[in-house]
Amino acid sequence: MPIITLTTDFGLRDAYVAEMKAVLYARMTDATIVDVTHDLPPQDVTAAAVVVGRVVGAFEAGCVHVAVVDPGVGTARRLLAVQLRGQTLLCPDNGLASWAWRLYGEGRAWEMTWRPGAVVSRTFHGRDILAPLAAMIATGTPLASLGHTIDDPVQLELNPARSTSDPIRIIHIDHFGNATTNLLSSALSPATKHAIVRGKVVPLHQTYGDVPRGAPVALVGSSGLLEIAVNQGSAQSDMHLQVGDAVEVR
Amino acid sequence: MPIITLTTDFGLRDAYVAEMKAVLYARMTDATIVDVTHDLPPQDVTAAAVVVGRVVGAFEAGCVHVAVVDPGVGTARRLLAVQLRGQTLLCPDNGLASWAWRLYGEGRAWEMTWRPGAVVSRTFHGRDILAPLAAMIATGTPLASLGHTIDDPVQLELNPARSTSDPIRIIHIDHFGNATTNLLSSALSPATKHAIVRGKVVPLHQTYGDVPRGAPVALVGSSGLLEIAVNQGSAQSDMHLQVGDAVEVR
Amino acid sequence: MPIITLTTDFGLRDAYVAEMKAVLYARMTDATIVDVTHDLPPQDVTAAAVVVGRVVGAFEAGCVHVAVVDPGVGTARRLLAVQLRGQTLLCPDNGLASWAWRLYGEGRAWEMTWRPGAVVSRTFHGRDILAPLAAMIATGTPLASLGHTIDDPVQLELNPARSTSDPIRIIHIDHFGNATTNLLSSALSPATKHAIVRGKVVPLHQTYGDVPRGAPVALVGSSGLLEIAVNQGSAQSDMHLQVGDAVEVR
Repeated sequence: MPIITLTTDFGLRDAYVAEMKAVLYARMTDATIVDVTHDLPPQDVTAAAVVVGRVVGAFEAGCVHVAVVDPGVGTARRLLAVQLRGQTLLCPDNGLASWAWRLYGEGRAWEMTWRPGAVVSRTFHGRDILAPLAAMIATGTPLASLGHTIDDPVQLELNPARSTSDPIRIIHIDHFGNATTNLLSSALSPATKHAIVRGKVVPLHQTYGDVPRGAPVALVGSSGLLEIAVNQGSAQSDMHLQVGDAVEVR
Repeated sequence: MPIITLTTDFGLRDAYVAEMKAVLYARMTDATIVDVTHDLPPQDVTAAAVVVGRVVGAFEAGCVHVAVVDPGVGTARRLLAVQLRGQTLLCPDNGLASWAWRLYGEGRAWEMTWRPGAVVSRTFHGRDILAPLAAMIATGTPLASLGHTIDDPVQLELNPARSTSDPIRIIHIDHFGNATTNLLSSALSPATKHAIVRGKVVPLHQTYGDVPRGAPVALVGSSGLLEIAVNQGSAQSDMHLQVGDAVEVR
Repeated sequence: MPIITLTTDFGLRDAYVAEMKAVLYARMTDATIVDVTHDLPPQDVTAAAVVVGRVVGAFEAGCVHVAVVDPGVGTARRLLAVQLRGQTLLCPDNGLASWAWRLYGEGRAWEMTWRPGAVVSRTFHGRDILAPLAAMIATGTPLASLGHTIDDPVQLELNPARSTSDPIRIIHIDHFGNATTNLLSSALSPATKHAIVRGKVVPLHQTYGDVPRGAPVALVGSSGLLEIAVNQGSAQSDMHLQVGDAVEVR
């Protein structure tokens, strides 16, 4: 049975995630559900888009991913299904799919017009519309019977840097305080020796332990992007890094 | 195989939840286990009761819910199985079932007198008594063979308001800072235009996006209860709301 | 299908845990995966070792446990498989297995020399090496085909006290602020009446509720170790306890 993953800003204190799972299991008793995270910063679509990019890179064809960071819930914003790498991503049309879309080649986007027969809430489309859609898609319902293709999904200003002369910036800071940039490892050459961020020159190495404890290091992280870290420390707090900071490589 | 859900204040840093799952899987290798939350405020029975109400509303007949917020563990307090909507809720007898009981019609309550043969801890009945009970009930053991009915489960002072003249108050604040009241949507009429809380008049709408960003809004939330929110903000911090605050509707 | 458990310091905001699960499910579509915790203090090997001890005590023969707190990722540190109680623990060779090893009798340790054919990251061996190993071991691949035995796994200075005259100290503080010591319950006699910590004499009882609310209590916790707690309070904050504090029993 295909895997369904969940990526939300619902937090871990309430019953919201369990309510989505109740819907999924009611329609697919043998569902395999993977919680990616429910602890995204509330309503931070950019952070969610970067996490979704990693998820689409990690799973296999057939998986269905539900991503819900949805400040516009209940308004006229569309709900999308986006096909990427043989997987389907369900999300509101607010840019959540942007990063994956640009990393993995443009996919195909569908507006999901299916709605349940019963009255649905105006505040919890994750449970009332996206979860049933996920179960239907995972069990083989064709997208064409649930909506229609579109060619204008909302896109964030979030582009991979494919060359060291493209604009490079920090796009994500993880739990350890490591700062991921938008620079693809394919843009690095053996001549690249340093990254420069906030005026600080950081040497490029292969792993954290290649520098002394507490020292900054640039490396290709596990998602194939340039990353700025501090060995056994936090680049975020030790180097005062933030999402959006410009980075240069030399 | 029926679903077993877990709702606790055990936190996410220790092995406690995994120890309960080890017991469940040892008795039901194909169990479907759903974590509702393990991040309830420690020993806050009221918060837990409200979450349990949502859980019982979301799942289907046959599910077994284990809820453990248990300041009295190891003392003489009873352990209960409560039947509601065809589901079974296992919990200490401290009011955890109250809200679900009052929302969904009074169920049937059993004191669970079954105890494992081996010596059990005096501090972890969730693992040593409730988890085995959950597995037994989920696999078909009749409640009558595990205990006896009672008619006096502990009830919290936590009542749904079925009319706008009943006492209305905030009973829960969620991860987003949205404040849920005890007022059922069925009590609202088309003439209801406002909620009033802490002296502030809040307009009633259908969803968050019906008011400008940062503005307060009252609406029927996804559990069918009146809710006070701030569009893309936190009613809790922006309006200084707390559980227990009185609310009026007009 | 055997259970695979995950114990990490990866946090709950990023996609790291889901990426490990993607690898596990790709190799074992019917895997049963249990998240123990992903919220260990970053790079705190001692805290992780204590949690791993509880996990190995709780699960049954055949389970495979993956524990990743790995400040040395990408350096020359070894990766281990340790057999204890019929279970297999996969972890970096930094002492993560120490506490379980000493509690349950010395096991057998193997250095895992298997590496995937494709290029692996230098920063995420949990996903790229340990997860495939876990799937292979859980599905029956013999350890001898994945590495070789060793007799010198790294051990932390973390020993169970088997007698009240052994050095006793606090080895873990849980989510509730309860402080677990390294003293095994088998070392206690009926004559033991008190624990002494930070100059405070704490009476020994059987459960939290045996003392008034807010009072300190010593008891045998659910892992069979002496624990210092405060009834419905936090021994950590109320008594200013820390990991490493010396404890005496009388």
